[in-house]
Amino acid sequence: VAQDLQAGPAVAVTPFADRLAEAVERKHSQLVVGLDPVVEQLPEELRDEALLGRPHAASAFTRFCCGIVDAVAPHAVAVKPQSAFFEALGADGVRAFEDVCAYGRAAGLVVIADAKRGDIGSTARAYAAAFVQPRGDAPPLADALTVNPYLGRDSLEPFLAACRTGGAGLFCLVKTSNPGGADVQDVTLADGRPLWHHVAALVRELGEEVVGDCGLSAVGAVVGATFPREVQQARQLLPQAVLLLPGVGAQGGTPSNLEGAFASGPASALVSASRSVIYAYRTDGGDWRAAAGAEAERLARDVWAVSGR
Amino acid sequence: VAQDLQAGPAVAVTPFADRLAEAVERKHSQLVVGLDPVVEQLPEELRDEALLGRPHAASAFTRFCCGIVDAVAPHAVAVKPQSAFFEALGADGVRAFEDVCAYGRAAGLVVIADAKRGDIGSTARAYAAAFVQPRGDAPPLADALTVNPYLGRDSLEPFLAACRTGGAGLFCLVKTSNPGGADVQDVTLADGRPLWHHVAALVRELGEEVVGDCGLSAVGAVVGATFPREVQQARQLLPQAVLLLPGVGAQGGTPSNLEGAFASGPASALVSASRSVIYAYRTDGGDWRAAAGAEAERLARDVWAVSGR
Repeated sequence: VAQDLQAGPAVAVTPFADRLAEAVERKHSQLVVGLDPVVEQLPEELRDEALLGRPHAASAFTRFCCGIVDAVAPHAVAVKPQSAFFEALGADGVRAFEDVCAYGRAAGLVVIADAKRGDIGSTARAYAAAFVQPRGDAPPLADALTVNPYLGRDSLEPFLAACRTGGAGLFCLVKTSNPGGADVQDVTLADGRPLWHHVAALVRELGEEVVGDCGLSAVGAVVGATFPREVQQARQLLPQAVLLLPGVGAQGGTPSNLEGAFASGPASALVSASRSVIYAYRTDGGDWRAAAGAEAERLARDVWAVSGR
Repeated sequence: VAQDLQAGPAVAVTPFADRLAEAVERKHSQLVVGLDPVVEQLPEELRDEALLGRPHAASAFTRFCCGIVDAVAPHAVAVKPQSAFFEALGADGVRAFEDVCAYGRAAGLVVIADAKRGDIGSTARAYAAAFVQPRGDAPPLADALTVNPYLGRDSLEPFLAACRTGGAGLFCLVKTSNPGGADVQDVTLADGRPLWHHVAALVRELGEEVVGDCGLSAVGAVVGATFPREVQQARQLLPQAVLLLPGVGAQGGTPSNLEGAFASGPASALVSASRSVIYAYRTDGGDWRAAAGAEAERLARDVWAVSGR
């Protein structure tokens, strides 16, 4: 009974993948806009305020990210606030993170908290509570969370429980967008596979019990858009997973390389861009909101076109 | 120049391992007390308050953890606040985490922030700023941070920079204390080694440039005390690393199994216990502070005896 109480009442919730698939079809978009606020890159009027100290910087982050949310909401299906940039401002920053997540949800966007958490079971339960479980009477902070697989199955189980009972989504790191990911993820196993194939198999197995009506699972996989060949392989290894593909834009990935990622349907891959969208005003000029909106619109259109091929 | 400014002035700082080694010798202790506050397990007077809502719970966490710090400070060399339990209370909890870290440092304890962060380089820089870099005029939140190696070398570089320039310490996950860790960490590589041996080699290499006068590196390794054989192997693979050994007590590890871990000197291994110390009053009865202090004293003595064998 205590277990049941913790997990919340057994009301019917829409599985994460079904909510996502509906939103993708409705908006004709698989674009995820990453929210990576950095003081030095903020528009001038916000940067000046941010330099006054942490609480001011946190307030500037909130206003910047909410402005971006407004600008990209018509074009993106999701936003992905990156916890690290908010945590760099301490508790004030975490408050801003909470506000930005709530604002994104209120704007009708799927909110993916990019926090890459992973810990042993008793601790992972606390992380699940922090990010993807209802907070008292309040809804969960985010719709989905990025997680790290290094600690294995039992470390992912508490998050999986939130998928089962609360309609949460997970995106497990599989093959990351950075060059250094190869140091661990590409190590060759005794059976000839790279390690990340083994992790993909683990993700596939975990995801099998939380597949929605749309045929996609609540357990997705992070695969760097910077590695198009690996994206294709991941699609084959994980036919029911939503692939979250970061690294488009500033990191060098392009939508045209990602065609095969959508083989399991329009919602089976999400393309994530951060700096190239939110700081578009720095290269394109003009109002920062308008520049971000225009870049999001362009990118979403490109991705949608690629996904329909 | 911008890089130098970010890294702080080039004042001579004592390397992490040397600070740790001095403290271990002075206190005759290698005990790390993990601070894992959970509302349901708090002493009654604090639990009643904690149930009134998040800000109250955060305040109760602060008072509980500071009470534990006072009780164990004579016996432990370090405390290890687990970020997840504080994050579960949102921004209020993160404020409590900050307060507890500051209180631990003021009590003369080494503070190891247990947050297991890991992300691509630009994001990892933000995590380094959050946990182990000076915050404006204020000192770093913690002396050391636990990190996750799944994203490879470039994801650990920003933390390493804080070791170089600010005297920070790192503890990289290598072989974790939970059963599920085997799912990824024990996978057999083409050369016959388990994956965690490969990660240990990466940790060794990263640590070579930040070795203190005491012969130990600022880059340590997390190895579960629940796996005594692997602890011995880790000692051989990582002769200069401080091994952080969690899992004693509630998870089943015992000091007597860890003898060989201290082969590189008294400060070359830290034994971490959390629930068995901080909630000792639940089994031993009496005042919760006194029970925690007594259990910490007993455990520290046992570990010190083992380390000198």
